[in-house]
Amino acid sequence: MPKLRVHGFSLSLDGYGAGPNQDIDNPLGVGGKALHEWAFATRTFRRMFGAEGGSTGRDDAFAARGFANIGAWILGRNMFGRVRGPWPDDSWKGWWGDEPPYHVPVFVLTHHPRPPLAMNGGTTFHFVTDGIHAALASAAAAAGDRDVRVGGGVANIRQYLQAGLIDEMHLAIAPVLLGRGEHLPAGIDTAALGYHCVEHVPTASATHVVIAKRKQ
Amino acid sequence: MPKLRVHGFSLSLDGYGAGPNQDIDNPLGVGGKALHEWAFATRTFRRMFGAEGGSTGRDDAFAARGFANIGAWILGRNMFGRVRGPWPDDSWKGWWGDEPPYHVPVFVLTHHPRPPLAMNGGTTFHFVTDGIHAALASAAAAAGDRDVRVGGGVANIRQYLQAGLIDEMHLAIAPVLLGRGEHLPAGIDTAALGYHCVEHVPTASATHVVIAKRKQ
Repeated sequence: MPKLRVHGFSLSLDGYGAGPNQDIDNPLGVGGKALHEWAFATRTFRRMFGAEGGSTGRDDAFAARGFANIGAWILGRNMFGRVRGPWPDDSWKGWWGDEPPYHVPVFVLTHHPRPPLAMNGGTTFHFVTDGIHAALASAAAAAGDRDVRVGGGVANIRQYLQAGLIDEMHLAIAPVLLGRGEHLPAGIDTAALGYHCVEHVPTASATHVVIAKRKQ
Repeated sequence: MPKLRVHGFSLSLDGYGAGPNQDIDNPLGVGGKALHEWAFATRTFRRMFGAEGGSTGRDDAFAARGFANIGAWILGRNMFGRVRGPWPDDSWKGWWGDEPPYHVPVFVLTHHPRPPLAMNGGTTFHFVTDGIHAALASAAAAAGDRDVRVGGGVANIRQYLQAGLIDEMHLAIAPVLLGRGEHLPAGIDTAALGYHCVEHVPTASATHVVIAKRKQ
């Protein structure tokens, strides 16, 4: 059985994973971009988008870890795009252009069916309308011997976390206050679900922690 | 006007400042003690309770800063003790023995009047029944040229924070999940209140941040 993993999920000091009022100019919500400064500076992130340079220290090691041994992704609808409700047509193909940075099958949770969408570079978006367990089963089958990574948004990760299905989750706590937005842990008793902090690596840009279902 | 300061306030990764079910065996709530491991190891903390040794690095510098130039404290009722409702008598004198580690006037917020209580070493507990603004006015008068420190519990700090009265707050985010308990920032839009993160010092034991009402 592959592991279900979350990586590079940035949180504000007050626990928000995205700012309020997501729109085309603010895909991470107002103020949300500041959460990800630690990642933008890394070589892994820059290469993903075809840029040179970038840091190669501990922040980068965490960014890179998120792409190792991943055979499929699961994304929430809002992470895939800004369209709400039924798909008006097939014109929206994600935020990432013709060659998205996934390179494996990606399962998008939605209430609205749509045929699979094959992109350049090995990414195919599959639209799953029958819930998180069905998406996980399909993603696990597609991943084979590799693991499944759960991407954002916050609501998507909250669903898998609340169901106790996530095996390990890397969070990067950024030195930023948002005050409002989408809160990751609110109302989820992670300790009762069996999660512990198993890794704690602070850097100048963020505090990296890994929580997992094994003993501290 | 003295500053109103919070220091050494420990939070879990999920934002809790104390665990659930405070009682005589768990004055910080179940699991709450783990939040403060960074502080227990410091020389400042150990000296406060008459012990030798302790760390002298960045954790200790933050612990020490919390006692510099403080002329009065404000505490919540539950921080002072486990007694709830009207005081049955004057026998409860705080958690700290005959010589509490404050050495200045301490204003305890309560709904139930009680005469001032002078302890050894310069600490006098004053019981304030007319709210947070009255307590602040009395504490500021007592502090003179020095600042006022707001101690716990969580509810006490939340009241002053929500009212925008806190000038600076040092938080220590510990690599611990609590899952339940008393949440510090829930429902308080610190960004809208004008707070920014102005200092970010991660150590192996905690991520120290200072939030304040000045520009980032």
